[in-house]
Amino acid sequence: MLLIQNIRLSRILRNTWHVDLIMIASCTAAYFVREYLIAHHFEIPSIIPTVLGTAIAFFIGFNNNQAYDRWWEARKIWGAIVNDSRSLARALINYVDEDEASAKRIIFRHIAFLYALKASLRGAVDEIYIKYLPPEDLLEIKKHTNKHNAILNIQSRELQKLSKENKIDGFRFIEINEMLVRFSDSMGMSERIKNTIFPTTYTYLTKVFIWLFVVTFTLVISQSAGPASIFLGWLIGFVFVSTQINGMSLVDPFKNNSAGIPLNQITRTIEINLLQMLEETDIPEPVKPINEEYVL
Amino acid sequence: MLLIQNIRLSRILRNTWHVDLIMIASCTAAYFVREYLIAHHFEIPSIIPTVLGTAIAFFIGFNNNQAYDRWWEARKIWGAIVNDSRSLARALINYVDEDEASAKRIIFRHIAFLYALKASLRGAVDEIYIKYLPPEDLLEIKKHTNKHNAILNIQSRELQKLSKENKIDGFRFIEINEMLVRFSDSMGMSERIKNTIFPTTYTYLTKVFIWLFVVTFTLVISQSAGPASIFLGWLIGFVFVSTQINGMSLVDPFKNNSAGIPLNQITRTIEINLLQMLEETDIPEPVKPINEEYVL
Amino acid sequence: MLLIQNIRLSRILRNTWHVDLIMIASCTAAYFVREYLIAHHFEIPSIIPTVLGTAIAFFIGFNNNQAYDRWWEARKIWGAIVNDSRSLARALINYVDEDEASAKRIIFRHIAFLYALKASLRGAVDEIYIKYLPPEDLLEIKKHTNKHNAILNIQSRELQKLSKENKIDGFRFIEINEMLVRFSDSMGMSERIKNTIFPTTYTYLTKVFIWLFVVTFTLVISQSAGPASIFLGWLIGFVFVSTQINGMSLVDPFKNNSAGIPLNQITRTIEINLLQMLEETDIPEPVKPINEEYVL
Amino acid sequence: MLLIQNIRLSRILRNTWHVDLIMIASCTAAYFVREYLIAHHFEIPSIIPTVLGTAIAFFIGFNNNQAYDRWWEARKIWGAIVNDSRSLARALINYVDEDEASAKRIIFRHIAFLYALKASLRGAVDEIYIKYLPPEDLLEIKKHTNKHNAILNIQSRELQKLSKENKIDGFRFIEINEMLVRFSDSMGMSERIKNTIFPTTYTYLTKVFIWLFVVTFTLVISQSAGPASIFLGWLIGFVFVSTQINGMSLVDPFKNNSAGIPLNQITRTIEINLLQMLEETDIPEPVKPINEEYVL
Amino acid sequence: MLLIQNIRLSRILRNTWHVDLIMIASCTAAYFVREYLIAHHFEIPSIIPTVLGTAIAFFIGFNNNQAYDRWWEARKIWGAIVNDSRSLARALINYVDEDEASAKRIIFRHIAFLYALKASLRGAVDEIYIKYLPPEDLLEIKKHTNKHNAILNIQSRELQKLSKENKIDGFRFIEINEMLVRFSDSMGMSERIKNTIFPTTYTYLTKVFIWLFVVTFTLVISQSAGPASIFLGWLIGFVFVSTQINGMSLVDPFKNNSAGIPLNQITRTIEINLLQMLEETDIPEPVKPINEEYVL
Repeated sequence: MLLIQNIRLSRILRNTWHVDLIMIASCTAAYFVREYLIAHHFEIPSIIPTVLGTAIAFFIGFNNNQAYDRWWEARKIWGAIVNDSRSLARALINYVDEDEASAKRIIFRHIAFLYALKASLRGAVDEIYIKYLPPEDLLEIKKHTNKHNAILNIQSRELQKLSKENKIDGFRFIEINEMLVRFSDSMGMSERIKNTIFPTTYTYLTKVFIWLFVVTFTLVISQSAGPASIFLGWLIGFVFVSTQINGMSLVDPFKNNSAGIPLNQITRTIEINLLQMLEETDIPEPVKPINEEYVL
Repeated sequence: MLLIQNIRLSRILRNTWHVDLIMIASCTAAYFVREYLIAHHFEIPSIIPTVLGTAIAFFIGFNNNQAYDRWWEARKIWGAIVNDSRSLARALINYVDEDEASAKRIIFRHIAFLYALKASLRGAVDEIYIKYLPPEDLLEIKKHTNKHNAILNIQSRELQKLSKENKIDGFRFIEINEMLVRFSDSMGMSERIKNTIFPTTYTYLTKVFIWLFVVTFTLVISQSAGPASIFLGWLIGFVFVSTQINGMSLVDPFKNNSAGIPLNQITRTIEINLLQMLEETDIPEPVKPINEEYVL
Repeated sequence: MLLIQNIRLSRILRNTWHVDLIMIASCTAAYFVREYLIAHHFEIPSIIPTVLGTAIAFFIGFNNNQAYDRWWEARKIWGAIVNDSRSLARALINYVDEDEASAKRIIFRHIAFLYALKASLRGAVDEIYIKYLPPEDLLEIKKHTNKHNAILNIQSRELQKLSKENKIDGFRFIEINEMLVRFSDSMGMSERIKNTIFPTTYTYLTKVFIWLFVVTFTLVISQSAGPASIFLGWLIGFVFVSTQINGMSLVDPFKNNSAGIPLNQITRTIEINLLQMLEETDIPEPVKPINEEYVL
Repeated sequence: MLLIQNIRLSRILRNTWHVDLIMIASCTAAYFVREYLIAHHFEIPSIIPTVLGTAIAFFIGFNNNQAYDRWWEARKIWGAIVNDSRSLARALINYVDEDEASAKRIIFRHIAFLYALKASLRGAVDEIYIKYLPPEDLLEIKKHTNKHNAILNIQSRELQKLSKENKIDGFRFIEINEMLVRFSDSMGMSERIKNTIFPTTYTYLTKVFIWLFVVTFTLVISQSAGPASIFLGWLIGFVFVSTQINGMSLVDPFKNNSAGIPLNQITRTIEINLLQMLEETDIPEPVKPINEEYVL
Repeated sequence: MLLIQNIRLSRILRNTWHVDLIMIASCTAAYFVREYLIAHHFEIPSIIPTVLGTAIAFFIGFNNNQAYDRWWEARKIWGAIVNDSRSLARALINYVDEDEASAKRIIFRHIAFLYALKASLRGAVDEIYIKYLPPEDLLEIKKHTNKHNAILNIQSRELQKLSKENKIDGFRFIEINEMLVRFSDSMGMSERIKNTIFPTTYTYLTKVFIWLFVVTFTLVISQSAGPASIFLGWLIGFVFVSTQINGMSLVDPFKNNSAGIPLNQITRTIEINLLQMLEETDIPEPVKPINEEYVL
């Protein structure tokens, strides 16, 4: 998540420079093609870039809206994980009779679940979760490809044990189990966003149409603006390209970059909240922004 | 689901070539009609294709938005099926007392339910589900037209049996039954999307208006661009047509093609998750992409 | 629900011909007014139809979006009725102890509820529901204006009776009651869509503005296109009018026409599913499309 | 809620006439300013009203969409109140053992709740609710500023009493209490819409920009259309103004006017349904439309 | 929340004056650059500001829509807090047997929770919550960074105590606990909106593109409008800038300014409702608007 309001233009150009080069080359080619091949035969009607502009506006708007929706849905899912984590801890700490050790073990295991899920979504190796799991859990989890789902399974087993030992009654059992079901939902929803590729035809057609637009636009304005049309063609193309690239940076909100959801920060916030609720003393620091610029 | 970012233009043209032919023929006709019939009488005002362009932009945008919504809703439904399947398995494995055989039988039957539902949505013959059902179930299901609904019915009966034998209490009964209700909901929601035809008047009017646009557009630009207007008319038409066809490829998300929801992959993922939770050893491979290009 | 993809143009014209006549008359009048009254005094600026076009585009887009949303919401409501009907039947068949007769009676009464609700939404006389009700129910319902609500009331009474006779416990009672609450919700939601008139000012202003547009558009293009402007004015007007009329055909989705939700088909599907679950032998045929063109 | 399709133009003009006067004055002023002050110095570029038109289109579209959403949400809330009222009555009539008097008293008190809530939302004095309350309730409610909330409080107390007297068990208690929670939600949601002013900057800026548009538009077209530009300027302004005013008429859906939600009609419908379910004989008439034109 | 309909233009200008200065400087520079450097070489094609206008329209529309959605979601969350607070109080007052003191203590603590949450969202020091908490609670809360979460934790503990002392049964326990879970959700949702920065690239690119637009627009119109183009360039720029700034004022709805959600007013309303339900006599005044202009 970007924190600063005044982005340096270089940050934008860093993301677009290879497209900028292609556009400048295309505009230059278009300029010379018109100058030496077309100019004496016919005029390119200006309605062509205008109509293409409409099509591109639809595409870029559509892509941006869907990308933002994915990003915001991802943020909502992790917001729900925050809320449910607190409710789980609150329930375990207050509703389990005379077995603080079990309550604490389940809450610790839940922190492990969050770190394992985060690592899986980020596609990163993150071993923090190990320190919150007892050795027998680690052994059991090793056999599973989906580690966070395996952890959830152990949680259910321990909940059943609490219930059988009469440390919680049926009403409290159903309440805590409900939280596990919700974590299962949030986990699956995160995986859905991560694994579902935004239809690539949309991004592909957008690229093709922007290119078509830039070329026909340069052809049209070179009739009055001369060589400056190469610069102007690129300028307008840059407006569209940077908008499109900016939107697409939100489409995979779990990527480990400055545009993504700050999973490190959120997970750490939950960790701190839960440890404070358990009245632990060894509490980690909140996640710090990088260069005061963004937080991961 | 398409995996690759750089679609070959041939893939687009393969979907549009018959429309391309119609457009080129229309543009050619329009060019000659203007050249020999209209040119000496009056000018086609350029406001006509401009206004038509607005109408088309609305139509194509509307169609694409609704198609994408259907596609994404379908994806969400099957995401919910993933989550609920895991929650069902977790509940059965951990909350059923001393009857692992029943728990396993219900989970196997659930995998059968998924394969039967998938086959029905795809309109394909898929007999995988047979191997997860005991013979008496197969016999019973044969009588029903809606096989997946019949399977769900057996699940309820077995759940009731578990409850009557005191292997689960009322709270756990309600929890597991809730999952069956959710599967019934997801099943019906999938059928709704599959069976509800997107209002055909929208796609029909879009076609008519694009054709009108291409013809009037060619009439207008041929006043300045000469024979090149045939090519330019087609080019602009192609932009609209490919956008429309691209959107419509999402409108039936359960079709067995590269734009659809990858039901094979999702069902297999659930199958693997559930078998691992049951600590089975004979676990199938994940579904592989076809030509590294798309996954079904 | 329309089934065919290639609508005959006559179907569109049948819905628009009286508006077409008004438009042609207006365009003709506008043409002669300009020719003999305005031409020598001043020019109609072409910015007027352009700006009006923007306003109309907003209106038609808005109307279509809201109409489609009503239509799709209606479809979702009846999709939920399908799902809940199956869940109700599944619960009654499997969870009621030793009283198959009651279970069957409630399911039959539920089919009656659906037919009564459908008849009320369609504003049609439909007596099918009678055959699924015992005589004493018919007698009781007669006194009520809202027949489907009265049927639901009997369902609750019978559910209470099952509970008092200990044929279902509290958990199953709450589960089946939940389904009755959901039917009450779906019923009320359907009535809401049927009874809430889409704000008539929107459709009225759309008509006024399209008329204004067609007239000013003809005035403007007649400056260059001559008498052909009458035809062209109508053509553009037709594009807007057919779009608007097409959208408005979805605004009352429970109407008994080809654009509406196919309540006959959906109700019959539920009826078949429920009778098969009851292992009945006398099962009606699915609803057939009319002329292979649409299904009601 | 307006019932008629053909609104008289006078109804629109009645809502806009003071704005119409301001616009005609502004257009006249603009015409003379250009004629005598600007005409000899420079030309007003026509791109100015075009760009302003885009900004206005966004504003009017935005305002209309949000206003319609508020209106439709309000309608949905009262639709939910209809459904929950029926479910409450159904539960009380069928699930309370041997205490018809209490059931009837709670249902009557619920009708009072609806009338009190309606009166509060409409900001109207409406004393109908008094006749459905026993004297001791009236005495208690007098002390509260929020009368409908106070009624809900009595409902909970009586529900608790029924439960303590063993006339309902825990499952039925939770079911009926759930309805009270839902009424509390619907009540609060209605108050939220009533009390939250739509950001006034939007309506203010819209007014300013429409005025700017009308003035610059008149300046531009007066270059070719002469004095007729005063009329044409007003005409285009009228299109925008009537659209905006029409949208804003939906923004406060609980107002007691023809565009609002017909709370009188809805409340009466619930009243009739509930009295019929109680098999009362003295049943009021449905609310009649006023002048066959609208219903309140 | 602004209350007045007629905003003074000065209020708008106060928010935009530094941008206005930049725009006037840029327009002046653009005017002279064209006059002395470009005019003799080539013409700036007017299609450039037109295309830029489209891009800006998308951006401003997108930003406004997302900002309004955040604002309205924030309002809905606090509306839910109102509803759930009343339901909590209703449940505690009526469903707790013979322990009015506990019920009152929990309700008071809930008011403290609301004030603590409000202070945290506003980033303000607000010590009102102290007066609703017993000393031992204050001591316990001091140790936590997230004070409102700590209060919720105490609520759960006291609820468990009520349950253990048999003052509420399992059904009532689950009902009241459900409210605590909902407060946890609303709390987390508020924090999500407060802590998630709206992607800064959107606001940044909007600024850059508006500047580009104003400059190219001035370049284009100065060809016909002369020095007046400086004023006209600023005027059009002002339209875009004020729209953008207006939208962005909604993006952080918990800020303590006139555009934000009136948390003071809402919290006080809940406080009054709850104290009246408790039949307290010392009831604070509702929050008064400031200068009859806005309410915080």
